[in-house]
Amino acid sequence: MPKGIGSENPDNSENIVSVDLGDRSYNIHVGSNLLERAGEYIALAAPGARLAIITDTNVGPLHLATLTDSLDCAGIGWLAIEVPAGEKTKCFEQFHQVVEKVLAARLERGDAIVALGGGVVGDLAGFVAGVIRRGMKFIQLPTSLLAQVDSSVGGKTGINSPHGKNLIGVFHQPELVLADTGVLNTLSPREFRAGYAEVAKYGLIDRPNFFTWLEENWPEIERGGPARAEAIAESCRAKAAVVAADEREHGCRALLNLGHTFGHALEGATNYDSTRLVHGEGVAIGMVLAYKFSNRLNLAGPEAAERVIRHLKTVGLPTSISEIPGDVPPAEKLLEYIAQDKKVTKGELNFILTNGIGQSFIANNIATSQVLSFLKEEHPS
Amino acid sequence: MPKGIGSENPDNSENIVSVDLGDRSYNIHVGSNLLERAGEYIALAAPGARLAIITDTNVGPLHLATLTDSLDCAGIGWLAIEVPAGEKTKCFEQFHQVVEKVLAARLERGDAIVALGGGVVGDLAGFVAGVIRRGMKFIQLPTSLLAQVDSSVGGKTGINSPHGKNLIGVFHQPELVLADTGVLNTLSPREFRAGYAEVAKYGLIDRPNFFTWLEENWPEIERGGPARAEAIAESCRAKAAVVAADEREHGCRALLNLGHTFGHALEGATNYDSTRLVHGEGVAIGMVLAYKFSNRLNLAGPEAAERVIRHLKTVGLPTSISEIPGDVPPAEKLLEYIAQDKKVTKGELNFILTNGIGQSFIANNIATSQVLSFLKEEHPS
Repeated sequence: MPKGIGSENPDNSENIVSVDLGDRSYNIHVGSNLLERAGEYIALAAPGARLAIITDTNVGPLHLATLTDSLDCAGIGWLAIEVPAGEKTKCFEQFHQVVEKVLAARLERGDAIVALGGGVVGDLAGFVAGVIRRGMKFIQLPTSLLAQVDSSVGGKTGINSPHGKNLIGVFHQPELVLADTGVLNTLSPREFRAGYAEVAKYGLIDRPNFFTWLEENWPEIERGGPARAEAIAESCRAKAAVVAADEREHGCRALLNLGHTFGHALEGATNYDSTRLVHGEGVAIGMVLAYKFSNRLNLAGPEAAERVIRHLKTVGLPTSISEIPGDVPPAEKLLEYIAQDKKVTKGELNFILTNGIGQSFIANNIATSQVLSFLKEEHPS
Repeated sequence: MPKGIGSENPDNSENIVSVDLGDRSYNIHVGSNLLERAGEYIALAAPGARLAIITDTNVGPLHLATLTDSLDCAGIGWLAIEVPAGEKTKCFEQFHQVVEKVLAARLERGDAIVALGGGVVGDLAGFVAGVIRRGMKFIQLPTSLLAQVDSSVGGKTGINSPHGKNLIGVFHQPELVLADTGVLNTLSPREFRAGYAEVAKYGLIDRPNFFTWLEENWPEIERGGPARAEAIAESCRAKAAVVAADEREHGCRALLNLGHTFGHALEGATNYDSTRLVHGEGVAIGMVLAYKFSNRLNLAGPEAAERVIRHLKTVGLPTSISEIPGDVPPAEKLLEYIAQDKKVTKGELNFILTNGIGQSFIANNIATSQVLSFLKEEHPS
């Protein structure tokens, strides 16, 4: 906790997770009411900086005033740039517009871009921060569960291309992340569940005890008790550990893609239409498919996939392609989406597979034919 | 020299300059006939990579076939993307188009972007390489003197904004730079002289003996004798030393901007119209202005500026604003361009000033009023 902050407020419990990246290290603060004290934190993390706050048409009306009141109190100058809510905002046009708006405001290299929103806003704003004057300061104020446990941690930024998701971007680490658990109460149940898919993922990658704890504590996590903050902090710790070991995804960081190769393909196949499928739902189905595919390859027993399905069903997440509303393209087309996904090296397919709950690993050289016949079974046309 | 290369060709002298940046270190090879052997070098620096060659409408017809013949010999797959020649190509639209073309060709993270051209092509191609899949491999084959001694060394990439030059980009280091001194024979004398302004700059920053050597050897450098390759290699060594000490321009790297604050303002004020002023000409005038301004501030004697003017005149470079054809906006407007230049911190003007030949230093907190009255004297309206 920064010196002087929260000292008059001993009940205000707060978890701090450090992301250890040498001279690019930073802290993630997880707790309630952080947004209304953001000015104090930002004044310490980026002294003297002026801010360009990027937010969207959903989050701005809910939370921007809380943030700017706090900034005004702390004497920090700011301007706000609102972008349309939704995945389609992660496009070249929005990226260009926001960059030029920040330049028009004459922000300098020591000033900061602030992302106030979910994963879309964070990915776009981080990319903007990464390219203006070859790198401005960047601060993440994630307002969705997905952003708090995943996209705000680790420095990946970017936008989508017609050729695939997140294909254009940079690695750009923030100076500070404030994960305010209170703002999650404004999420729809569907959004909250979608973010939770990434929480469950950390258990399924390499933390079997965490997965068991999640199975036991889901009701309290959903209700918003202390277990929610603990689940978020543990997720951040899990991600921070992987990122510290492999910042630029040359090796083990790929583990974080558990469920994402199938998931991204399903998002692409449904044209990123969030009325049909949001990212976390794609990941939920993708994790089930990764566990089932591992079983088919005799890497894991059937009970592992069954346990994943059981927990995700309890949470209310989809666990099969057939649950996606509307037509989903045939298996051959899904395979094309997978092949264009960026987790491909020299034309061979890479997958995150598993030997059981919390025993995932990176598999290279998976044969296209095996994936195709598995997908045909899971998704008969 | 890579193992096996040039061994049958003992007369083929080649300078190798290492840029020491830890795990991002790379070599710059300076010599003749490097382009026709590029395939061998690239096979060693980026084994197995497919290439997207970015070139322009001037350079492509002259040199692309030499390069691709060499790649075909080495069994390296490639596609070529040609952009219009000229500074206006460093814009968001071209950037977007090239990115999508590379993605359409399904190049992967381990594949490489190759810049075959001058500074414009290198800056654009490097930025493209820096953002596709959050960073592809990058190889520089600079074909102008300016690119060989300056823009291809050090990892700065980017494009221009209506708000200023090079305001959008990333730091992205190449794997390999091949500076083929033979291709410089295809440059116009004006282009060659403009590139030479950056060569002289290294002497004027902190290598007074190099500047004296340049004064003595200019005729041979112009003619294309061994002094030309030596001038290029020494320039690369000078730049590599500064970049190794300060990769991301937090400190001494700013010295490389000697002449550039005034120079960029003049480029902006002439709307980047290369028929009126090219970058190196702006830098030449800018260096003279920096030396004269230093004299006006009693930091350097008048003889230093006089010596700079004498040498640049011998070379055939412009040394005053009045030599720029057409109307140049008044001093007040030039100051606005300076203020929007990225070498500004917290609204105060930073300049590279000097105590004499080869004795430059970074000056902060230069008062706007001093700059304005100096500009009014140099450029009465």
